[in-house]
Amino acid sequence: MRTVELIGVVLFLGVLCSESKYMVYNTSAGIDAGKINVHLVPHTHDDVGWLKTVDQYYVGSNNSIQGACVQNVLDSLVPALLADKNRKFIYVEQAFFQRWWNDQSELTQSIVKKLVNSGQLEFINGGMCMHDEAVPHYIDMIDQTTLGHRFLKEEFGVTPRIGWQIDPFGHSAVQAYLLGAEVGFDSFFFGRIDYQDRIKRKKEKSLEVIWRGSKSLGSSAQIFAGAFPENYEPPPGFYFEVNADSPVVQDNVNLFDYNVQDRVNDFVAAAIAQANITRTNHIMWTMGTDFRYQYAYTWYRNMDKLIHYVNKDGRVNALYSTPSIYTDAKYATSKSWPLKIEDYFPYADRANAYWTGYFTSRPALKFYVRKMSGYYLAARQLEFFKGRNDSGPNTDSLADAMAIAQHHDAVTGTEKQHVANDYAKRLSIGYTEAEKVVASSLACLTDSKSSFGCGDPTTNFQQCPLLNITYCPASETDLSHGKNLIVLVYNSLGWKREDVIRFPVVNEDITVHDSEGRKIESQLVPIVDAYVDLRKYYARAYLGSSPDDVPKYWIAFTVSVPPLGFSTYTISASKKPGAGSTKSSIYKFQKGEKPAIEVGEGNLTLTISAPSGKIINYVNNRNLVEESVEQSFSYYTGYNGVNDKAPQNSGAYIFRPNGTYHIKAEQASLTVIQGPLVNEVHQQINPWIFQTTRLYKEKEHVEVEFIVGPVPIHDGFGKEVATQITTSLENSKTFYTDSNGRDFIKRIRDFRTDWDLEVNQPVAGNYYPINLGIYIRDSKKEFSVLVDRSLGGSSIVDGQIELMLHRLLLDDSRGVDEALNETVCVLDDCRGLAVQGKYYYRIDPLGEGAKWRRSFGQEIYSPLLLAFAEEDGENWMSSHTPTFSAIDASYSLPDNVALITLQELDDGKVLLRLAHLYEVGEDSDLSVMSKVELKKLFPGKKIVKVRELSLSANQEREEMEKRRLVWKVEGETENQNENPKVVRGVPVDPKKLEVDLAPMEIRTFVMEFEVDLMSTTFKRIVDA
Amino acid sequence: MRTVELIGVVLFLGVLCSESKYMVYNTSAGIDAGKINVHLVPHTHDDVGWLKTVDQYYVGSNNSIQGACVQNVLDSLVPALLADKNRKFIYVEQAFFQRWWNDQSELTQSIVKKLVNSGQLEFINGGMCMHDEAVPHYIDMIDQTTLGHRFLKEEFGVTPRIGWQIDPFGHSAVQAYLLGAEVGFDSFFFGRIDYQDRIKRKKEKSLEVIWRGSKSLGSSAQIFAGAFPENYEPPPGFYFEVNADSPVVQDNVNLFDYNVQDRVNDFVAAAIAQANITRTNHIMWTMGTDFRYQYAYTWYRNMDKLIHYVNKDGRVNALYSTPSIYTDAKYATSKSWPLKIEDYFPYADRANAYWTGYFTSRPALKFYVRKMSGYYLAARQLEFFKGRNDSGPNTDSLADAMAIAQHHDAVTGTEKQHVANDYAKRLSIGYTEAEKVVASSLACLTDSKSSFGCGDPTTNFQQCPLLNITYCPASETDLSHGKNLIVLVYNSLGWKREDVIRFPVVNEDITVHDSEGRKIESQLVPIVDAYVDLRKYYARAYLGSSPDDVPKYWIAFTVSVPPLGFSTYTISASKKPGAGSTKSSIYKFQKGEKPAIEVGEGNLTLTISAPSGKIINYVNNRNLVEESVEQSFSYYTGYNGVNDKAPQNSGAYIFRPNGTYHIKAEQASLTVIQGPLVNEVHQQINPWIFQTTRLYKEKEHVEVEFIVGPVPIHDGFGKEVATQITTSLENSKTFYTDSNGRDFIKRIRDFRTDWDLEVNQPVAGNYYPINLGIYIRDSKKEFSVLVDRSLGGSSIVDGQIELMLHRLLLDDSRGVDEALNETVCVLDDCRGLAVQGKYYYRIDPLGEGAKWRRSFGQEIYSPLLLAFAEEDGENWMSSHTPTFSAIDASYSLPDNVALITLQELDDGKVLLRLAHLYEVGEDSDLSVMSKVELKKLFPGKKIVKVRELSLSANQEREEMEKRRLVWKVEGETENQNENPKVVRGVPVDPKKLEVDLAPMEIRTFVMEFEVDLMSTTFKRIVDA
Repeated sequence: MRTVELIGVVLFLGVLCSESKYMVYNTSAGIDAGKINVHLVPHTHDDVGWLKTVDQYYVGSNNSIQGACVQNVLDSLVPALLADKNRKFIYVEQAFFQRWWNDQSELTQSIVKKLVNSGQLEFINGGMCMHDEAVPHYIDMIDQTTLGHRFLKEEFGVTPRIGWQIDPFGHSAVQAYLLGAEVGFDSFFFGRIDYQDRIKRKKEKSLEVIWRGSKSLGSSAQIFAGAFPENYEPPPGFYFEVNADSPVVQDNVNLFDYNVQDRVNDFVAAAIAQANITRTNHIMWTMGTDFRYQYAYTWYRNMDKLIHYVNKDGRVNALYSTPSIYTDAKYATSKSWPLKIEDYFPYADRANAYWTGYFTSRPALKFYVRKMSGYYLAARQLEFFKGRNDSGPNTDSLADAMAIAQHHDAVTGTEKQHVANDYAKRLSIGYTEAEKVVASSLACLTDSKSSFGCGDPTTNFQQCPLLNITYCPASETDLSHGKNLIVLVYNSLGWKREDVIRFPVVNEDITVHDSEGRKIESQLVPIVDAYVDLRKYYARAYLGSSPDDVPKYWIAFTVSVPPLGFSTYTISASKKPGAGSTKSSIYKFQKGEKPAIEVGEGNLTLTISAPSGKIINYVNNRNLVEESVEQSFSYYTGYNGVNDKAPQNSGAYIFRPNGTYHIKAEQASLTVIQGPLVNEVHQQINPWIFQTTRLYKEKEHVEVEFIVGPVPIHDGFGKEVATQITTSLENSKTFYTDSNGRDFIKRIRDFRTDWDLEVNQPVAGNYYPINLGIYIRDSKKEFSVLVDRSLGGSSIVDGQIELMLHRLLLDDSRGVDEALNETVCVLDDCRGLAVQGKYYYRIDPLGEGAKWRRSFGQEIYSPLLLAFAEEDGENWMSSHTPTFSAIDASYSLPDNVALITLQELDDGKVLLRLAHLYEVGEDSDLSVMSKVELKKLFPGKKIVKVRELSLSANQEREEMEKRRLVWKVEGETENQNENPKVVRGVPVDPKKLEVDLAPMEIRTFVMEFEVDLMSTTFKRIVDA
Repeated sequence: MRTVELIGVVLFLGVLCSESKYMVYNTSAGIDAGKINVHLVPHTHDDVGWLKTVDQYYVGSNNSIQGACVQNVLDSLVPALLADKNRKFIYVEQAFFQRWWNDQSELTQSIVKKLVNSGQLEFINGGMCMHDEAVPHYIDMIDQTTLGHRFLKEEFGVTPRIGWQIDPFGHSAVQAYLLGAEVGFDSFFFGRIDYQDRIKRKKEKSLEVIWRGSKSLGSSAQIFAGAFPENYEPPPGFYFEVNADSPVVQDNVNLFDYNVQDRVNDFVAAAIAQANITRTNHIMWTMGTDFRYQYAYTWYRNMDKLIHYVNKDGRVNALYSTPSIYTDAKYATSKSWPLKIEDYFPYADRANAYWTGYFTSRPALKFYVRKMSGYYLAARQLEFFKGRNDSGPNTDSLADAMAIAQHHDAVTGTEKQHVANDYAKRLSIGYTEAEKVVASSLACLTDSKSSFGCGDPTTNFQQCPLLNITYCPASETDLSHGKNLIVLVYNSLGWKREDVIRFPVVNEDITVHDSEGRKIESQLVPIVDAYVDLRKYYARAYLGSSPDDVPKYWIAFTVSVPPLGFSTYTISASKKPGAGSTKSSIYKFQKGEKPAIEVGEGNLTLTISAPSGKIINYVNNRNLVEESVEQSFSYYTGYNGVNDKAPQNSGAYIFRPNGTYHIKAEQASLTVIQGPLVNEVHQQINPWIFQTTRLYKEKEHVEVEFIVGPVPIHDGFGKEVATQITTSLENSKTFYTDSNGRDFIKRIRDFRTDWDLEVNQPVAGNYYPINLGIYIRDSKKEFSVLVDRSLGGSSIVDGQIELMLHRLLLDDSRGVDEALNETVCVLDDCRGLAVQGKYYYRIDPLGEGAKWRRSFGQEIYSPLLLAFAEEDGENWMSSHTPTFSAIDASYSLPDNVALITLQELDDGKVLLRLAHLYEVGEDSDLSVMSKVELKKLFPGKKIVKVRELSLSANQEREEMEKRRLVWKVEGETENQNENPKVVRGVPVDPKKLEVDLAPMEIRTFVMEFEVDLMSTTFKRIVDA
């Protein structure tokens, strides 16, 4: 259909859908400077999974759980918008929109494009989902936003202007400055802030602020941010969903119950009430809520009438609007706004209802997401090296699964169990495809014979996604009959890396050689019962069967891997007995024996008190830090308010402890494993907590691996299991936690920067989300803990850091309507979920902790990727390329820079993101401007074009900066907010191709390379 | 928009709304003779008031009670039908459709007309509402159907083919033969039949029958009638309302939970299950239910897919269909069907759940409807005489209110209280307008001065709608100062009529003169306390205030009124004291006085036992009938199953007694009022029942007037108040009740004609609806009771007739969710509703009862209409036309014929309906062919054209008969079903203009008269 015809259709539908033959509603109102302007913003909030899965929400199945069908929203929206060109709508979640878009005919698509172009339909936020802000890693937030934004750019040529995080349970600094300002948003709106904060802000008209989320980037990354007065629904009585209760506007004089004046009065009263707590004469009404607009027309029918009659009344001015129009109107007033720094955590919606439980809820899902995040980053690198295959296998489905998993009811753990399963299933499917990409890329990269692309690589690399349950079929091959195992170790970091890897083996007498044929020291670590049990049960649960043979050992050895590259090792049976790996010594403490034992082969040693099983002393011989450290477990019983008048259980969202129980470690269970590379202290803390404290000879941190669960619930009490690490540091209630794995924010116990806190939950109200780590410090030392996934933590007692590791049991009445009680089943035998994980701690002299937190933190995020292959007779090393680095051999990224995205796009261009890892002032050496040489990053390729883009890669950075609104901050003069001036990297010189990165800066580029018939990657290998 | 453009639009919408760019669903299936054909009939069932008022349902307000908005249904339907020309829909309730239609633009109207023409949108049933079948009077059923049918004919040129009574609670013979066959329907479908009956019919595949509802009209008025296997919803799992639970068809292979084969299997299984209880290979699925299709697209989206995939599967054939297509398919099979006679009452949906309470529920509303019915009939006559005024006042709003009140949750009393109020309000508004029509018509007709039309009539006639509470301001004028009162008495029957009228007066010494100046005998009857109390409270409740003065007397006198005409009387102060009305004598029984007293001034005398207060003997001196008659009251306590496992309360629908309590009359309260015209026995039966037994000198029946209420509920028990009249007749469990006031049907206690009844409710299961009357007989006598409104009744004991008069208290869990507890409030003072009413009884020799039942029954339906005017000085009689008859002075209708419609249509033509009042064999004289002479009915007019129409006046009778499907009845040979041949009136000879009417025949005509500049009516008056 051509445009002319389309216009006819639009006209037609306008007439067809107009309410009445008598009434034509005047909905054309714009802004009236002399009145209160009520911006009606029609919207739907479509959770990308919560009570139902994303697909169930889309098609509208499983409605017995929740009547919700996104298809209906979008199907019914199109004719409703066509019917009146003044009507507007915003759409947010691209995971849904893309599902719908793919289903539409070209004609519908062309109509929708017109609606987008005319501004009737505006995409805002625009990521695949409305990600959570507490528990996702910032890289995942960027990736999922980019995925949505690039789709919108490619399909519609549009760039969302507005951040719209209306439902997440508190709001992060990173969201404001990075996923807000750095994405190019003009403003950012949200619904949930602490109830005490909200009261104060309403009183002071400070719900709308200028938010500077980053100490380092300051005003260069500030954003206009508005918290809604209540929630993201319309004012009471203006909710016009099909079958909803609000009084419809009855303006037909021929029927009974004509109520126009009543409704106009209600409208004006609600508008004035909101105007009384809002600066300027612009207020926003969020006309919609979760999965509403099932039949969009019901809303517009009533809004049309309200706009018509309210404006006829004249006391206030009502208009169809969007957050963009609202933002521009606010901006046009040239008013100043209060300044907001830090973040909006934790969130409590009322007394005793701190939403700090979800920082830890479903810790296994949280780990799976984090693990896949690092894997996805690595897989995209390898996909790029090999060359992307649009028709697959590729990393797209993992990208999609990861994006969806960032939703604020996904990785948060606040969904129903079947939905959590759906996220895991998607990740698993995505992983399986990405695993193929990785395997084939590695095979290609190692395949010396193939100089021209990668036709038929010879090596079949296996990976071991279940290594965490000590299950790795590829490594568990019997080497005693002469077979050798090739182990490839890929490093996705931009630095060379040395680390101890480990995997299970079935042979005892084996040797490790590097690719040069040098024998490497290795250590056999016994696989103890706790791990065997985990392997047996979970392999059966995940795979349907469990192999009968159980390997007795992990082999551990130190690998050295170049940046963005791999090294290869050969595992083989020892030529002569005893010449292979060193077996660890095992020392089981008996009652009354030695009072203490010292472990540690390197600079760091721990002294363990045998009677208590606790660490009593921590000594670093290099930097001379010495500290008493006591680590213990406890659990909180979850509040069960079933008999209360105003009950508030602890649940998936809310942490509400009702008593603390310290878990006394069982003395008899102490075992020390010692060897040349790693020492371990094994402790069966109680029947359902097993802990390994691990010291690597070459590392100066303590690695703690825990297995918590199945948490017993036969007593009917929910248990929220925490660990405390207690030092003597005098941190004066102060601790630091990261924002989405990036900036650290200062936290003070029982205190809020923005208001006088009324403390009603002395534990839950002091919990904060931890993605990277938490630290405390005093005048001499800093004590840092880093984590392998997001979890909740705090410093409830001076000198102590606490992490919550696992939690259950009740529902907290925030909609999930299902107990948080994760189980794992083998057929009908279900057990409580056991959670395995690691955290790491270290004590540094004051001012020296950041280096470890930042660089080792990056290593935790991007663990070495292992791939295994059996050597098939001939010498694999000599016939293959055993080592590889994608970057110039002379080069590695600066210590303060990480490559957080390297990805071939579907148009063949390459997306590159570089992140400065340090904040201003964080480290005396590394909190400085850094420089990356792109030519050395892509040594074999000719860079034709480098364009710097916004963070989500949907617009030119320069254009974005030009368009950026310059908001005024209350109390700051014109240039005061640039003092001290924020320094940022300058535009890239197309000749020099060097990228400057200021502290905390992330810069995003699209690169184009000279097209070469010969694969440049492989060409480089051949050239090398 | 022109047609060509419209087609473009339709095509466009088809593409726009098609589900997927990949999928095009083949929805074009027609009938496949070789398979089970599943006729998918998309429908919505829109109650014209129930839990919400009709207007609330239409606009979708008050959704907290029920999420229902008819606007949504129709608004969303149009684009859904346009999107695929195979999609179909039926719409039923014209009260809603007209509201919507009036709101639509001309363009939408033209599109909808195309949808109707193409058969995509089919109107079925087509009355204003889906009337009830137990409690409406047949005249009201005809009127409301005609109103809808004529609209459809005029606006769309269509004639509904199908009766669709899917929700009413049992089904009447009159519905089947009169509102079915005589309307021209080809079939008739319904959802509710007795659960025991249903089981048997499913087993015998006899849910679909040929129903001959009339003994008199037999096969000439039979219809194909189908009861649904369960209800009028889709089979479980195929309910696709927005937000509904049924599994949607998920056929997108790119999403999870693809379920096409599962859904096809479910569909086939449900189809086969239904086919197994259905004759022929056609089954109907009713795809919809109450107020559904709020977003029509959700249904079609899924039905499209089902049709596509089910037909691809091939085991059964699925198609979009309508009941018309289904009926034609059934007919095309040429199969024979079981014969059904009588009706489907009473209805029980399970054991102990007999829907026989609603026969009486809200007895005051039932009376109001019946009273308005007679008034509406009279008002239309008077409107015709005067000439209809399209712009009002006219009888249209009363027509509309009456039509809506016939809905199966209106006059039934099964709506919420606020909805009952709405019906009453509509009747009141309609009455108020009709009252003006009547007053002005009477003024015109009496106005001798005005020969040419009715410009400025001189008499201001007042009417007294509150005469039932003894409140008549017009008659309560003080005549002592020489003012005279003119009383006009209009008779809407086609026969001359003599009757005693009464109204309150304030003067004692007054005289009545007829229009010739002759003094008429009159009697003053004291207004006793029970009536004074009623007047005071209800006048205050209805009018806001109650006049302080209370008239002491009713004046009663006998009037004689010509057919379709009026007489006039003058009431004036007596010239000399004592010469006026006779005061009644009053005799209050004292304890121990006379043992019995005889009352009655004419042929009929009753003997009252003073000690018991009961009638002990009934003697008719004319026909020598003598009988002992004992009349008493009792109440059933309603079952309250709140503590039961399977509770079933008695409620608005369901009568479930839990014990019977006889009410012992209070001995002391007996008062006898005697006078020349009427004798009365007053009894205060108990504190909340007052009864008047009334004998007119000139009548041979007993009139009983009761005031029941406020029924005490302080004991928490619901009470269902009944009266029993016990005789010695040996009726052998057999009694007769009317069908909607027309045919009498034989009932046998604890017995059903169609199946072996399992008795679980020996009282409730024997109740039947009574509109006209109930009678029993034995070998010698028949005992008849006639009623003034619909109520429930039975003969629970031989010789006895029982009527239920009033009932309350609980909710019976059929959706109303509100206790049946009617109250009347004066400000905040609310009392239980008192119900006033009358019934009449008479005992005749066997075979002689019908005459009274039929002719007096017609008088009850059409009481004399009274209008009052004050004489303003000059002699009113001499300056006005004091008597009038619209028909030829020499003529009156035959005794067995009633004029049930005489109405000027909005096109100026005149609608005439004549009804034979007797059944075949009912009366030896009157159950014969009768003849009406139209020329004499319209003596002053020239009849230009008489067209006989179907009962609902929307098609030529002859055409209708030609099109009528000739169904075969099982066990009957080709012509057997015409043996004995049914005789009916022959077509009217346009010259002779005589209408033959066979027993029970109703014939409908549209008449055209010669247009005359001079009003023909007034011309006739002048001529006379």
